[in-house]
Amino acid sequence: MISQSFSPSPIAKPILLSGREPAKHLEEITRQFVQKQWLTWSYVWILFLWDNPASATYVSMKGAFASKVWLATKVFGQLDSPLHDVQAVYDCIDMLNADDLCVWILIQLPVPDLFMSALPSFLSRVAPHKDIDGLWWIAFGKASIWLFDFLPATPAAVMGLLDRYDLWAVRGKTVTILGQSNLIGKPLAYALMWREATVYSYNAYSNPDVVKKTCQQSDIIISCTGVVHLITSSYVRTDKSQIIIDVGWGKKDGKAVGDVALDQIAPLVWAYTPLPGWVGPMTVANLFHNVKVLRELHNVAKLV
Amino acid sequence: MISQSFSPSPIAKPILLSGREPAKHLEEITRQFVQKQWLTWSYVWILFLWDNPASATYVSMKGAFASKVWLATKVFGQLDSPLHDVQAVYDCIDMLNADDLCVWILIQLPVPDLFMSALPSFLSRVAPHKDIDGLWWIAFGKASIWLFDFLPATPAAVMGLLDRYDLWAVRGKTVTILGQSNLIGKPLAYALMWREATVYSYNAYSNPDVVKKTCQQSDIIISCTGVVHLITSSYVRTDKSQIIIDVGWGKKDGKAVGDVALDQIAPLVWAYTPLPGWVGPMTVANLFHNVKVLRELHNVAKLV
Repeated sequence: MISQSFSPSPIAKPILLSGREPAKHLEEITRQFVQKQWLTWSYVWILFLWDNPASATYVSMKGAFASKVWLATKVFGQLDSPLHDVQAVYDCIDMLNADDLCVWILIQLPVPDLFMSALPSFLSRVAPHKDIDGLWWIAFGKASIWLFDFLPATPAAVMGLLDRYDLWAVRGKTVTILGQSNLIGKPLAYALMWREATVYSYNAYSNPDVVKKTCQQSDIIISCTGVVHLITSSYVRTDKSQIIIDVGWGKKDGKAVGDVALDQIAPLVWAYTPLPGWVGPMTVANLFHNVKVLRELHNVAKLV
Repeated sequence: MISQSFSPSPIAKPILLSGREPAKHLEEITRQFVQKQWLTWSYVWILFLWDNPASATYVSMKGAFASKVWLATKVFGQLDSPLHDVQAVYDCIDMLNADDLCVWILIQLPVPDLFMSALPSFLSRVAPHKDIDGLWWIAFGKASIWLFDFLPATPAAVMGLLDRYDLWAVRGKTVTILGQSNLIGKPLAYALMWREATVYSYNAYSNPDVVKKTCQQSDIIISCTGVVHLITSSYVRTDKSQIIIDVGWGKKDGKAVGDVALDQIAPLVWAYTPLPGWVGPMTVANLFHNVKVLRELHNVAKLV
């Protein structure tokens, strides 16, 4: 029941699937696109209705990356007193939809209670090609049938990593995905079905013994559960033929860690993702690269 | 590794998961909705550009069902000479989008070569809540994140059948799906992930021995391959605890047959779908029921 491995003969040292170089590459592509498409003064509009510290960090990180790809950032809603006007948000979105220089309307979540009930209508009001996070996902629906190119940032990061290391040919390969979240696990399963992989999708209710056994029998294991060090040596074979992609996140003894116990896993597999050094840079790079992807889709067939 | 079965104790006679009664039920719901929503004179518009016999049969079947749920059918394009005017099709779609009594704009595939390159723009021009086949699927993108209620007809038929026989609680159950088509296998996998099932998705490139073994270990097997009598007794356990849903189609000795060799399987399982008597009536009923689903989604949050 052991599947054919990617590697014809096991090699001594496992391949490190670093995301840094592919992220730089994507950043360069995005920057060139922004320059060519808009010349200058194009911007990301951040609708920042709830000024909590976690969101503030996230917003400033996005702003920093935006400047790398020559996008300005404008933040709306960080007011002295909280915003109480739902209509003002609608009006703002309508104005931004109409402004060609606004390339991304980013609604920073969470939003205050006052705005929660209006959230679906905010999100659906954003023009689909400016909904880079894919929060309302008109674009994904189209992508699922006709356009293979749009995926949210993290699944796009995984697929991009496979492509960059010449591991794109997953037809007939067995890929096990641990985690079924809307923004990672589910679209990743979908993307891998498009590549004609055999896909096993597990969640927290799956039988742990079955999960472990299936992981042992897979060509690729992608873990996106957020359970620190879930994947230990007992989840993999010892023949150095498997690929492990860790999309997990967590903290242990104050250090950032993933789903995979890397020190145990690294000697046993053919290829694995480092931590840090892949999911962070690749996700941010793919998020901004989706500005290009959605704009190009929109240019071909209007995303209405 | 054998999963917990739905049936606490195996019973003597397997349950027949007939689609006729649930299809009638859906038909009644759809008819009531059409009457209440539109009173009368609402219609399905069929854009029938290529008058080949297979399509003609399909069109007349849809017309017959439409009349059962009090919808009129109008057919456009069955002309003496073939239509050569792409712009006329655009104009027609625009007019129908604006007419509230037009509840479904059905572009009958295939279309003539002349129209092939324009097909994506035809499909994307149809208002999403009138794209009942989900061909362009703006609605599905939204559904995948926010609205769980829209599925194309055949996956909706499968989920509806499970619901109708009180088999909806698939959380933690193992569901094997054979087939990864865009309109059946993929969205079905997606829908079952939403229900928090463990999902195994196979295609023609999957290892047949692995597929067979996994089927034996599953709680539910859904086959949508079109390979006649693929599922024989060696694919199932003998403990009468499994559920088999046959979404296959094919012919053998002039008779309609599915993916499942029913005479072998029926005595071994807890529940199975009959042939004929489920997939045909349930798919058509769900297709028309999607008129209601999409209209209601549209009424809550405009599907733009």
